[in-house]
Amino acid sequence: MKAPAKTGAFLFMQHIESLQNQKIKTLVQLQKKSKTRQELNCFVIEGKREIELAKNANYNFKQVFICENIFDQEIDFPKAEIFSISEKIYQKIAYRGSTEGIIAVVEPKSNQLDQLKFEHQNPLILVAEAPEKPGNIGALLRTADAANCDAVIIANPTTDLYNPNIIRSSVGTLFTNQIAVGQTSEIIEFLNKNEISIYSATLQNSNSYLKADYNKATAFVVGTEAEGLTQEWRNKSTQNIIIPMQGQIDSMNVSVSAAILIFEAVRQRQIK
Amino acid sequence: MKAPAKTGAFLFMQHIESLQNQKIKTLVQLQKKSKTRQELNCFVIEGKREIELAKNANYNFKQVFICENIFDQEIDFPKAEIFSISEKIYQKIAYRGSTEGIIAVVEPKSNQLDQLKFEHQNPLILVAEAPEKPGNIGALLRTADAANCDAVIIANPTTDLYNPNIIRSSVGTLFTNQIAVGQTSEIIEFLNKNEISIYSATLQNSNSYLKADYNKATAFVVGTEAEGLTQEWRNKSTQNIIIPMQGQIDSMNVSVSAAILIFEAVRQRQIK
Repeated sequence: MKAPAKTGAFLFMQHIESLQNQKIKTLVQLQKKSKTRQELNCFVIEGKREIELAKNANYNFKQVFICENIFDQEIDFPKAEIFSISEKIYQKIAYRGSTEGIIAVVEPKSNQLDQLKFEHQNPLILVAEAPEKPGNIGALLRTADAANCDAVIIANPTTDLYNPNIIRSSVGTLFTNQIAVGQTSEIIEFLNKNEISIYSATLQNSNSYLKADYNKATAFVVGTEAEGLTQEWRNKSTQNIIIPMQGQIDSMNVSVSAAILIFEAVRQRQIK
Repeated sequence: MKAPAKTGAFLFMQHIESLQNQKIKTLVQLQKKSKTRQELNCFVIEGKREIELAKNANYNFKQVFICENIFDQEIDFPKAEIFSISEKIYQKIAYRGSTEGIIAVVEPKSNQLDQLKFEHQNPLILVAEAPEKPGNIGALLRTADAANCDAVIIANPTTDLYNPNIIRSSVGTLFTNQIAVGQTSEIIEFLNKNEISIYSATLQNSNSYLKADYNKATAFVVGTEAEGLTQEWRNKSTQNIIIPMQGQIDSMNVSVSAAILIFEAVRQRQIK
């Protein structure tokens, strides 16, 4: 191990040139395996913008790997161990080509329901039950960011939120949204306790989404494209809603449906 | 080559058991290569529902390959050559596991602007300029089907519509929508000639999408997430529109944005 060296703006713990380095091996496992992320309670963020957003959202950075040939900004990580890596290593471990030059190992947030703080008096919340495809989760998060939703809640998660494909497809909005994760029953209890109306998007016993008033505290709940919502969401909703369709197939992408609902609420709130 | 055999409901030209069969080799090339699709003016449809939808939409079926161990429906292809294939071959050439048992070689439609026929007096049209990702194109087509849009027009295509990933992600709505393809300038001319208002979704010089009246003949035009729309669409629009965003990133998926616009038009038309 080389001695710590002050190079440019960073105080590096070590310069790493080998893919066999244990820290690099661990980072690669964290990228690839949900199990490793859970065991070590860490995940990987790649790219300048994503890292900056996570920093602004007070994520706890454990290790930062910088390729000085590529990364040329000043950025401060007071609590992290900072390593210099060779361009060759960076290009082996980075998913997104060679333009960013920075990659970090970060501690996830606990994403607990009772830690949610609502910005608006009448919060607007998106609940997604058991969403599967990283691309859909990313699109849901982008929409929630654009609509300035107060929170995104994932019910009965089937996938780990800190999957690199979710981070990437969310274009960083994984870090700009307030997120909570929980079981359906506890989320329903939480929403009831906070007097937030529950609008479950489902085909069964439902009214057109255009007939409800979303000026009050509102949670839209969407299920998977294949299975829809579980019975519990349908039974315990304030109102089941449907987007009336008039085509031959009548099957919209889940992130598309969620966006139509959320932006109807935004529209109603603007008019008011 | 075996003699033609009448098995079950189909009159088979031939039973094929070898991946080296020239027809199977060509089919695999048609799945993989846009260039082969263009040269032979054919593409491949897999799956019962997709094939049924294309049949209803009067696509011209050239060859149909049926695996009798899996496919057990009656369906009539008066003009096509029908082949029986072994289960082993079917599983090698099918993308979607072993549940369908039918795969066909089909002639594309010409998708010309002047062949579009509008169902509604005040048509609702979605124009997408140079869309790239098959998943996004599929989601756009699903939304257009659900909203019963009169047509989807692809401007300056960068990808071939009959790419298997587009067919799959469209869940068959590639065949339920009326589709046209053309250059931006000819599409603008076509829309003007048909007195269809052009609403270009763009950041520049634009009003909130909620301020316009979409009861008249309306075309929404969306560009790529990376590049937006070309100057021509922005200069020659009836009105440039924007979905006001209030987040930190303000970046929505293109199919999400298109859906918000289209369902606002559907909402306005319902009220009326």
